[in-house]
Amino acid sequence: MSQRITFTLAATDGRARTGTISTPRGEIRTPAFMPVGTAGTVKAMLPESVRATGADILLGNTYHLMLRPTAERIARLGGLHRFMNWERPILTDSGGFQVMSLASLRKMSEEGVTFSSHIDGSKHKLTPERSMEIQRLLGSDIVMAFDECPALPATEAEVAASMRLSMRWAQRSRDAFGDRPGHALFGIMQGGVTKDLRAESAEALNAIGFDGYAVGGLAVGEGQEAMFGVLDYAPGFLPEDRPRYLMGVGKPDDIVGAVERGIDMMDCVLPSRSGRTGQAWTRRGQVNIKNARHMDDPRPLDEHCSCPACRSYSRAYLHHVFRAGEMISGMLLTWHNLHYFQELMQGLREAIAAGRLAEFVRDFHAQRAEGDIEPI
Amino acid sequence: MSQRITFTLAATDGRARTGTISTPRGEIRTPAFMPVGTAGTVKAMLPESVRATGADILLGNTYHLMLRPTAERIARLGGLHRFMNWERPILTDSGGFQVMSLASLRKMSEEGVTFSSHIDGSKHKLTPERSMEIQRLLGSDIVMAFDECPALPATEAEVAASMRLSMRWAQRSRDAFGDRPGHALFGIMQGGVTKDLRAESAEALNAIGFDGYAVGGLAVGEGQEAMFGVLDYAPGFLPEDRPRYLMGVGKPDDIVGAVERGIDMMDCVLPSRSGRTGQAWTRRGQVNIKNARHMDDPRPLDEHCSCPACRSYSRAYLHHVFRAGEMISGMLLTWHNLHYFQELMQGLREAIAAGRLAEFVRDFHAQRAEGDIEPI
Repeated sequence: MSQRITFTLAATDGRARTGTISTPRGEIRTPAFMPVGTAGTVKAMLPESVRATGADILLGNTYHLMLRPTAERIARLGGLHRFMNWERPILTDSGGFQVMSLASLRKMSEEGVTFSSHIDGSKHKLTPERSMEIQRLLGSDIVMAFDECPALPATEAEVAASMRLSMRWAQRSRDAFGDRPGHALFGIMQGGVTKDLRAESAEALNAIGFDGYAVGGLAVGEGQEAMFGVLDYAPGFLPEDRPRYLMGVGKPDDIVGAVERGIDMMDCVLPSRSGRTGQAWTRRGQVNIKNARHMDDPRPLDEHCSCPACRSYSRAYLHHVFRAGEMISGMLLTWHNLHYFQELMQGLREAIAAGRLAEFVRDFHAQRAEGDIEPI
Repeated sequence: MSQRITFTLAATDGRARTGTISTPRGEIRTPAFMPVGTAGTVKAMLPESVRATGADILLGNTYHLMLRPTAERIARLGGLHRFMNWERPILTDSGGFQVMSLASLRKMSEEGVTFSSHIDGSKHKLTPERSMEIQRLLGSDIVMAFDECPALPATEAEVAASMRLSMRWAQRSRDAFGDRPGHALFGIMQGGVTKDLRAESAEALNAIGFDGYAVGGLAVGEGQEAMFGVLDYAPGFLPEDRPRYLMGVGKPDDIVGAVERGIDMMDCVLPSRSGRTGQAWTRRGQVNIKNARHMDDPRPLDEHCSCPACRSYSRAYLHHVFRAGEMISGMLLTWHNLHYFQELMQGLREAIAAGRLAEFVRDFHAQRAEGDIEPI
């Protein structure tokens, strides 16, 4: 795999972009939505089914995989792609965000973070160097720099200090990553909702130089308005010829707003997590399949959707299997949700390529405003 | 659907038989193993995946479906086949056995059984007439007569009284079923492990006349030896030109022994239930994927198996996802188990057709005696 990972912009429409990230493991059409395969599986899905929804790339979680089954074990077994039977590209996060949100007894220092596993309480340490090593052992195609994401609420001084630590860690990540043809390293911009800090962070990352850039520290509870406020300027601080990745986003309207503002890549557990709790996402908004109004409804979730759940099952069936606690409920709703998210991305890509994104976004909001179909 | 359901014997080998049950919804190759789709789903599987394992027919449970979502609702939605997206044949049990084993506050009378739902405690009544009505509403292709299966231990007098009640219910089931071209009604032989009672039960059923005959009241804790003892003579009491169905069986060696003794159809939750608890069935016996010896094992469950779990995943992966509580664990192990069971049935059918069943059975036991493969 000596081929370099490249990014080619095909078209822009306003600030929105569409293009292709080429990797030795296949192409990633942007804007791209990455389903999350936390512990080596996109929950409730077989990988061939995830691919069938249109996903070009998955996200794997360094924090979960380093604890179980461990990066060293995955490396001995031939890497994460073979382990989880997904031969296309994988992006791994750095573990930084999840150490903050999931691990207990965290201790931060300039060196890195020590913490206790949420599984068995065992002690672990993550540093920029160790994060790079783990992501190399996993065989990740797109590696994320190790960063800190401060918990909200935080003062501007705290956000600034945290961002500057992340920038020093970004340099250490870059140094530890080295030169690995066929693999990319992305830096992560921090700085909260403060424009000057975002600019300072971008400048630091640009000086180091990365294959792509993430906008970090958003979608952590600040709200859509504040997030869009940052996205109104932050992508513009980053080089045009590199992919821009918004981490942990999001709901369909978050995705549309982010793409309008120049974001190329996103990831979120939402479609799979919602699927397991009986929530479906459709063109007309969210549908709660638990609701008794679906009990006798012979119609599909969405009559225009071509996913297996909508092609072959009634709302009445989906309601029944959810209420009965049957696994097929999570399997079908997750499939539907991932299909809908990928269909949305395909629609966005085509609209940008055709220069009619504004019209696409207008229709997107109009359909949602209609709401779910009337009870029969 | 005016076509009659027919049974054609193609070959025999000793007492074992192979043939075809033809129905308007497709052919059932016998000996047949029927996966159980209790509540409108074979747990952890999509129906197209169940079909891909080689299943020609599924079993649905009257007891579960009458309580939730109710037979009337399924009928309004177009019947069980459309509801659960399985257009091939379905056999439904009568509800009798499960009322005995699952419902609380049962009250038996000559008329039928009243009981409380295990789901919400609501009161229900099952009679031969109501069981026939429910199975008609579900759209079942093969309907089972309503019977009582006495709980063990039971005295011979209790077994005899229960069997005679079941025979009176068999006549009422026959009367209530009427003439429904394209649908079959099976009678159920009872009589415990007492040959005279089995003979008396068979005589009563033969006098009524059914499209097929089940051997009931076995696989309820009497042990394999006692079960085989009954199967040494009971199938011989039944007409040769009708299918013989052994209810609730079983483990692979139970299946092989039953087929050797002239059984044509079986059903069991074992492959799907085992799959969800980390138990795999292979040519070499049972494998507990939870066991730590699989943690680093790059080999598949069975190198000769062509199921998706064996084709694309290591034991190490299956171990990891089971330990992590991931749904893909139950999905892959259930698929493997159903595949193995159907492959076993295919092997039995081919061996009987070729007149080499004894050799097949010898190999079957020899492979199991070798045990699971050695740790690497």
